[in-house]
Amino acid sequence: MTYNIAIIGASGYTGAELIRLISEHPALNITALAANSKAGLSMAQVFPHLRHLDLPTLIRWDEIDFSAIDLCFCALPHKTSQEVISQLPKGLKIVDLSADFRLRDPAAYEAWYGNPHAAPELQKEAVYGLTEFYRDDIRAARLVAGTGCNAATGQYVLRPLIAAGVIDLDHIILDMKCAVSGAGRALKENLLHAELSEGYHGYALGGTHRHQGEFEQEFSALAGKAVTIQFTPHLLPVNRGILCTSYVHGDAHVIYETLSAAYADEAFVQVLPFGEGPSTHHVRGSNHVHLGVVADRIGGRAIVIGALDNLTKGSSGQALQNANLMLDLDETLGLTMAPLFP
Amino acid sequence: MTYNIAIIGASGYTGAELIRLISEHPALNITALAANSKAGLSMAQVFPHLRHLDLPTLIRWDEIDFSAIDLCFCALPHKTSQEVISQLPKGLKIVDLSADFRLRDPAAYEAWYGNPHAAPELQKEAVYGLTEFYRDDIRAARLVAGTGCNAATGQYVLRPLIAAGVIDLDHIILDMKCAVSGAGRALKENLLHAELSEGYHGYALGGTHRHQGEFEQEFSALAGKAVTIQFTPHLLPVNRGILCTSYVHGDAHVIYETLSAAYADEAFVQVLPFGEGPSTHHVRGSNHVHLGVVADRIGGRAIVIGALDNLTKGSSGQALQNANLMLDLDETLGLTMAPLFP
Amino acid sequence: MTYNIAIIGASGYTGAELIRLISEHPALNITALAANSKAGLSMAQVFPHLRHLDLPTLIRWDEIDFSAIDLCFCALPHKTSQEVISQLPKGLKIVDLSADFRLRDPAAYEAWYGNPHAAPELQKEAVYGLTEFYRDDIRAARLVAGTGCNAATGQYVLRPLIAAGVIDLDHIILDMKCAVSGAGRALKENLLHAELSEGYHGYALGGTHRHQGEFEQEFSALAGKAVTIQFTPHLLPVNRGILCTSYVHGDAHVIYETLSAAYADEAFVQVLPFGEGPSTHHVRGSNHVHLGVVADRIGGRAIVIGALDNLTKGSSGQALQNANLMLDLDETLGLTMAPLFP
Amino acid sequence: MTYNIAIIGASGYTGAELIRLISEHPALNITALAANSKAGLSMAQVFPHLRHLDLPTLIRWDEIDFSAIDLCFCALPHKTSQEVISQLPKGLKIVDLSADFRLRDPAAYEAWYGNPHAAPELQKEAVYGLTEFYRDDIRAARLVAGTGCNAATGQYVLRPLIAAGVIDLDHIILDMKCAVSGAGRALKENLLHAELSEGYHGYALGGTHRHQGEFEQEFSALAGKAVTIQFTPHLLPVNRGILCTSYVHGDAHVIYETLSAAYADEAFVQVLPFGEGPSTHHVRGSNHVHLGVVADRIGGRAIVIGALDNLTKGSSGQALQNANLMLDLDETLGLTMAPLFP
Repeated sequence: MTYNIAIIGASGYTGAELIRLISEHPALNITALAANSKAGLSMAQVFPHLRHLDLPTLIRWDEIDFSAIDLCFCALPHKTSQEVISQLPKGLKIVDLSADFRLRDPAAYEAWYGNPHAAPELQKEAVYGLTEFYRDDIRAARLVAGTGCNAATGQYVLRPLIAAGVIDLDHIILDMKCAVSGAGRALKENLLHAELSEGYHGYALGGTHRHQGEFEQEFSALAGKAVTIQFTPHLLPVNRGILCTSYVHGDAHVIYETLSAAYADEAFVQVLPFGEGPSTHHVRGSNHVHLGVVADRIGGRAIVIGALDNLTKGSSGQALQNANLMLDLDETLGLTMAPLFP
Repeated sequence: MTYNIAIIGASGYTGAELIRLISEHPALNITALAANSKAGLSMAQVFPHLRHLDLPTLIRWDEIDFSAIDLCFCALPHKTSQEVISQLPKGLKIVDLSADFRLRDPAAYEAWYGNPHAAPELQKEAVYGLTEFYRDDIRAARLVAGTGCNAATGQYVLRPLIAAGVIDLDHIILDMKCAVSGAGRALKENLLHAELSEGYHGYALGGTHRHQGEFEQEFSALAGKAVTIQFTPHLLPVNRGILCTSYVHGDAHVIYETLSAAYADEAFVQVLPFGEGPSTHHVRGSNHVHLGVVADRIGGRAIVIGALDNLTKGSSGQALQNANLMLDLDETLGLTMAPLFP
Repeated sequence: MTYNIAIIGASGYTGAELIRLISEHPALNITALAANSKAGLSMAQVFPHLRHLDLPTLIRWDEIDFSAIDLCFCALPHKTSQEVISQLPKGLKIVDLSADFRLRDPAAYEAWYGNPHAAPELQKEAVYGLTEFYRDDIRAARLVAGTGCNAATGQYVLRPLIAAGVIDLDHIILDMKCAVSGAGRALKENLLHAELSEGYHGYALGGTHRHQGEFEQEFSALAGKAVTIQFTPHLLPVNRGILCTSYVHGDAHVIYETLSAAYADEAFVQVLPFGEGPSTHHVRGSNHVHLGVVADRIGGRAIVIGALDNLTKGSSGQALQNANLMLDLDETLGLTMAPLFP
Repeated sequence: MTYNIAIIGASGYTGAELIRLISEHPALNITALAANSKAGLSMAQVFPHLRHLDLPTLIRWDEIDFSAIDLCFCALPHKTSQEVISQLPKGLKIVDLSADFRLRDPAAYEAWYGNPHAAPELQKEAVYGLTEFYRDDIRAARLVAGTGCNAATGQYVLRPLIAAGVIDLDHIILDMKCAVSGAGRALKENLLHAELSEGYHGYALGGTHRHQGEFEQEFSALAGKAVTIQFTPHLLPVNRGILCTSYVHGDAHVIYETLSAAYADEAFVQVLPFGEGPSTHHVRGSNHVHLGVVADRIGGRAIVIGALDNLTKGSSGQALQNANLMLDLDETLGLTMAPLFP
């Protein structure tokens, strides 16, 4: 059985990454590709690395015949996404990769994004797309909200620890190092090669990054009380990969056992031997998460480090994993490729 | 039907790339991995990006039980390779990725590599592994010699043109730009990040690179007379990708038609629209070759540019494509993944 | 004696590079900085790496009091530059870094740039700014036109050879490799880190790059007849540096002697030992040019390679060297810093 | 007045950086360059970017005529350095760039470096080389011990805060991001371009990096009691630059005022406007330190970020600044160049 897939927002990096992954998927067929600003172009013109594939020409999203579509990925910028999705057929299965449906609370959405939500009823319906923790809900969902890439990385590190109550909730610091593709294909001076290459810096300092809202929503729900963490992202001169260095108070060995047990049956999450740390090199281009736990020389403190590819497990790979669940397919289809190294 | 595969020299980049590719191959099973200097280690220790795979522990090559092996990849340094292969079972199918069996003439081998060949009878038996041009011979071969990565790139550009007689053999210049992984995992000062990153330079200037020997062997055979070209490699601060800018005398449109016709039925060679040039970005991590033809403003001259990934189509992907042929499998198995971009 | 300097176009890379150099110059004082789009900002806001300097706030260029200015650098985009310079005081010494006054022939200008020149009388007055070859004219000039960065690199390689008649004018190929800062701080998709890093490609293929016009103007004047060359630029994932690999017909030793003699007394041009090639690593951030000559294995052919930093010797360093001459100062003032390596 | 300088260990990156800086110093003359493994070579052979300078040929260190030397820089690996320095003339002024004389306590040295100190009497004599905090001692010193590059970065962030008692000593975390040149020119697999480029990871996790010893020595002395911090370095794919993201408990505005006051008169330390963070881009190749203070959304917590160039302010620039003091010269001589950007 083959399912017909549409991708809205196919001219950005997450759209291209979806196509890369689906091109090796045995049960999905790309039926429609939309990108309003590049409608009429072939994918070979927009992304020459996909020229070997037989893909539909880009059209406007309202030109898609949704009656023929089994599932639609929406890879639009936030705010645009909610406007478009609210106009799509009500029964259509949708995986949204934007930020628009991640926060469940309309007030929290408005606080972090600066505008009232245009589709609050959809916001209520949406299931948070962190597969390993929302698997059953996702399987039953019509609309799944892909997580932030930083938010995913931090949650792989912390969720089992918060759920098990093995770390001090008042002392959680996430020092995040992020690749540039997370910012998308937007034309901004600070994303130019000459501005980024050969240097690095922090940004959204002091807890002002929007993914902070996701952390607080999810961690508070897990803990059963308000949890606030410290989260500082840094922009690095590489194209793919997030490394999250987490500083926590707790027993490192208990933390290690907790993480190992939590992910023992997961296909895409590997916990490294105790004392070792992961590298973004070793997950690049793959759907894998690597986690490492180290005891600090100060007793009762641990460093937990997570690494994943922001475009794959942090975005498009996660989206495909969720789509597999929504279509009742093997969750790993199209996602088993090994990382690219070097 | 599944075939059992051994890889000798599994601790280098081409060995790791073979494992990456074979991990997605439906009919090959990695039965033995050898690397004498790292025998006893797991692949997760040597290449942590492969830790999600269930792979045999590294052993010494003479510990392999070859009676259980259907085909062996040999990814050793040149000179070591001829010594090892001459001790392997005489009936074993072998794909060698080293330089040891590329040149058919023992005198040419000695001239380019500085030592007499230790296994001249194997040298005679070996088939040159440029798949698209030696397909039938490879299918029937026992020992296939993988080509040089630069040599492959230049030949995709030039072979059809020389065979068709549409360019002037006295005026062929290949200005080659090469990624650093082509030099392998060797500990050399000029391969350090601090020495390479943020700059570039030519090397093996004046026609002294060993792949020159391959060009001359192959082009002379095609032309039916001695052909000498100019070939200058440059080392670039990227990990994967070769770009070959070729300057030739001939009619650009005839050249374009000749290349288009030659590769019309090839799965892994794409000729771009006339006037466009390829980029290494668009083939990275894939088995594809992109070719572009442009007319120079000087009449009767053309620029033909080829791009491929040196570790995939230029080495391990080519090797797997040849192994597929030798095992009578679909030539594209394990090789259909799209490039990684960005 | 100190001279007062203005820089128009101070918010681009060449403007910032001028400030970097002048900050160490013993006889120049930056009196005014203009950038219309960023007027009112401090340089620390526009270029935080200059925050340690005591610099004037950015203003609009028409707010500059030119009566207090001894020499003005104009680092505007081409076309804008001619419009602005035509409105500046007629006696003001000006070094222009744009493309607007490089070509002496109005028809050639229009052919390469697509618009008629707005200030043809200034075009006639301007002196071409390749210091080592126009030194006396520059010393006497009021308006000096900085050369293209690729054009400078190619001319350091070829001018003495063409002047001496030691190479065949019908077979000159310049394969140029260029850093991304040459494209400036413009917001273009192809200049994003994610599009550039980890790959490379040719552009302006087939002799269509505008610096081709400079080559032809200058080489034809030197040769006393029309000279057309082949010139193919490539964009590399580094921020600074141009490497020009030149393929010529001629005796390599004669070429070497010709270059060595031509540059024997030059402070900023080093000819490497015969047979060695330069690297952009070794000139980065400096005003030096490194040149290497190698004999090809094909008799009568040579490879001549030049390397310089496009922002320094290829643009702002050249401009300062010319300003020193125009102000009757030691030509090397402010330009003697060593390259930055690694 | 000109002073004669020797550099022992001139073939490594810190040696080359010293030469780069001294080449623009008005009062220092390089009289001898030693590198035992490369004795007999010219500097142009070892570091081609220095070929424009007129430098002495490399010799063995015991060939130096120290009677003609006013001050000697020692840029050897640790352990070798103490052996060599103990054999140098007892009255010779020495700036050591190794780790050998940073720790004052022989037991601490042995604990962190694994061997008993070979010259404990010199260890006692040495002055710690963090210029801004040991200026008077350095001026009077015969032997100055250059600090670790990470140790310098962390101390610029924290020393004034600990001295003023404005942060909680039990909750200090330094998440450090380090460029690769800090590891020197050693041939190690993990320093190869193919292993480093395009990814990043932590190392020396859990407080095991040797610069931890420096932090604890210095901070405990300042606080008057034992201080232990958390310090995690990460290796980034760039050649120069350290960014230290420090998480502290304290009032952000008090912290800001404390740092601003501490560095108000320093030529090489800039405190950014409150709320802004520094970038390694903006200090590269310079002797400057940029510091930024941000309030976290959690009350009573602050993020303090420091950036410097590990080869300049973190090593060779610091060494030259100290040498200026020891020779009673203006402290900033040879160190005023602006950063290189882009």
